[in-house]
Amino acid sequence: MTAAERLAAPGFDIDHLPYGSFSTAEDGPKLGVRLGDHVLGVAALLARADAAPEDIAAADNANLDGLLACDRAAWDRVRAGIIRALTDSSVTEAIVAQAVPIDQVTLHLPFTVADYVDFYGNEFHASNVGRIFRPGQPPLTPNWKHLPIGYHGRAGTIVPSGTDIPRPKGLRPEPGGPPTFGPSRRLDIEVEMGFVLGSPVPQGEIALAAADDHIFGLALTNDWSARDIQAFEYVPLGPFLAKSFATSISVWVTPLAALDRARVTPPARDVPLAPYLDDSATPAWAFDIEIDVILNGEVVSTAPYNTTYWTAAQMLAHMTVNGAGLRPGDFFASGTISGPDPNQRGSFLEMTWGGKEPLSLADGTEIGFLRDNDEVTLRARTAALTLGETTGRILPSR
Amino acid sequence: MTAAERLAAPGFDIDHLPYGSFSTAEDGPKLGVRLGDHVLGVAALLARADAAPEDIAAADNANLDGLLACDRAAWDRVRAGIIRALTDSSVTEAIVAQAVPIDQVTLHLPFTVADYVDFYGNEFHASNVGRIFRPGQPPLTPNWKHLPIGYHGRAGTIVPSGTDIPRPKGLRPEPGGPPTFGPSRRLDIEVEMGFVLGSPVPQGEIALAAADDHIFGLALTNDWSARDIQAFEYVPLGPFLAKSFATSISVWVTPLAALDRARVTPPARDVPLAPYLDDSATPAWAFDIEIDVILNGEVVSTAPYNTTYWTAAQMLAHMTVNGAGLRPGDFFASGTISGPDPNQRGSFLEMTWGGKEPLSLADGTEIGFLRDNDEVTLRARTAALTLGETTGRILPSR
Repeated sequence: MTAAERLAAPGFDIDHLPYGSFSTAEDGPKLGVRLGDHVLGVAALLARADAAPEDIAAADNANLDGLLACDRAAWDRVRAGIIRALTDSSVTEAIVAQAVPIDQVTLHLPFTVADYVDFYGNEFHASNVGRIFRPGQPPLTPNWKHLPIGYHGRAGTIVPSGTDIPRPKGLRPEPGGPPTFGPSRRLDIEVEMGFVLGSPVPQGEIALAAADDHIFGLALTNDWSARDIQAFEYVPLGPFLAKSFATSISVWVTPLAALDRARVTPPARDVPLAPYLDDSATPAWAFDIEIDVILNGEVVSTAPYNTTYWTAAQMLAHMTVNGAGLRPGDFFASGTISGPDPNQRGSFLEMTWGGKEPLSLADGTEIGFLRDNDEVTLRARTAALTLGETTGRILPSR
Repeated sequence: MTAAERLAAPGFDIDHLPYGSFSTAEDGPKLGVRLGDHVLGVAALLARADAAPEDIAAADNANLDGLLACDRAAWDRVRAGIIRALTDSSVTEAIVAQAVPIDQVTLHLPFTVADYVDFYGNEFHASNVGRIFRPGQPPLTPNWKHLPIGYHGRAGTIVPSGTDIPRPKGLRPEPGGPPTFGPSRRLDIEVEMGFVLGSPVPQGEIALAAADDHIFGLALTNDWSARDIQAFEYVPLGPFLAKSFATSISVWVTPLAALDRARVTPPARDVPLAPYLDDSATPAWAFDIEIDVILNGEVVSTAPYNTTYWTAAQMLAHMTVNGAGLRPGDFFASGTISGPDPNQRGSFLEMTWGGKEPLSLADGTEIGFLRDNDEVTLRARTAALTLGETTGRILPSR
């Protein structure tokens, strides 16, 4: 029997192997890989698999930073080395002895975030927002189908799943009067898929066909949003404090290589695209991933990622077409993911239609936006894998 | 005679002492300080001044990163130590021997940029932009006087003065038809003052009165802008590719401590401000700094920083009031600086009123927006000091 067979659990078997940064009571943070409900140090696994010294060195790090600075060939070699070690029955006992149960480790941010970009790539979400805020007008802005709209977020406030989220304060609009300062009254989530980048390119212009070389993996993302602060501040330069207080990401990064079987084609394109965005000839870059939104233990929505109009490959091509370089640890998120049905919406803004149609919960209460002490967990799966969840609890304003 | 007296030159005397990161043919990058037309390694100066070992260690770095991780007391001690060494006549010869002429060094980005925020804090600029793009409507958006509008920019494309700027490509709006992809036709500058932050605060909420403890120094900034790309992309989430290709900053950071005598009060406030922004009781946070815009050697405008409505202290209080933390190397810029007069405008958009009133140059040509091979230099001064200039040349699109 191999270590892979001994340790695997549903969703986290040898075909998955997400990466994270873990520490124990004895040992400082290091790069680990998850198998079932255990974590294993990657550098030690690679040493057992007789991996190349430079690959071991890239993995012998507190987190993914060393690996993200390498190229895709190194990513593939490291994953192959991990699989070699975990499926070599001659070392099973040593590896099982090395594996640390997940409830005995502390998990950290899996990489150092360089720049963070948040997109707005899901048509159902963008249309819902348009209908809620600009009723009677075209739901999408004229640019929406021509390019993946995005903006830079705050890299320094990206936090690992499990971090508490104090309710942010800011200027809130008041009907017929000046704004007032205080805790947000319309605190929300945004269900998003995050993409971790590596293999640096100093001067951008990453072609669609090269996206596989730079998208290292996926991390489920909750882009916490204060709708009232956002409404007052966002014209004309976009969201700022409404988003910058915190963005939660999974402590587990699922390598792109593990998602081959979940790849599907994105929705049909409605307008001709500029050549750098025209993905008719490039492989499928949508993913069959379903994401449950779990509020205090109750599933309130299930958002299907494959409804997202703009793909991660297009987002990467777009954000570098102006010559902007890519650094290891750059990170971008898809934008809120919603499906066509009311129970597929990725924000409370949409689920409650701007707060006007409160959601009835199993405990008999109704909710518009998030209340203090509410806990939101995003849980995602493909047909074969379970992605690392992203959770956070709202604390009262400081 | 002291080293300070031997080496000083106008604008760069013992009262200034800006910091930079320099390397020579023999020696890798290290933190330096400028005196006249010479650079001196900071750690070596501190050692001569019998500075505390931890202060020497903070300065013994490739750039300002070590110092920015320290607190203001350390910043003050380091500056005092430098001044002590430079004014000690017993070590004059040794110090003069250590000084490297500025034309023999390579200058680098003076610190590692963590997060970058770009504000929009000058009323003359914001009003001009409103009049150009929305004629007949109120020039300022309703939120403008209630908070300093800002957005996150791309930290990874901040480049040191002297870096060439290839003309960015992107989607440009076309009258009556779909957008076309190609090089920007409306490439512009934005004259801004940048502020380098340090002394980390994990959970934000930096009060106005504490701004001196976190604003380490100033770096003149040119926020290159592609107006056509911006016009097509910016609704509803703000500027993205129109800005993210490059932002140039001075290789010299002028410490806040050197600008005491340039501090003045900002313009009068027109509406009551939320307590966290109400600066009626805090010291003057505007600066008497004039900034020349020099196009291919010809001064085409002189922008007065002291006309800027929102101060750096207010910007810092604002960007952290929602709980966002501050990391060493965080950086923000004031927004385009313009004065009330036509010859005080900080962008070609304003100087040429949206390109409709081309500027006549000394060589007999007219200019709307930037042409390939144009070189723009920003040069700034107070009554006593010359700030490090920021220059860049436009290259043809790649």
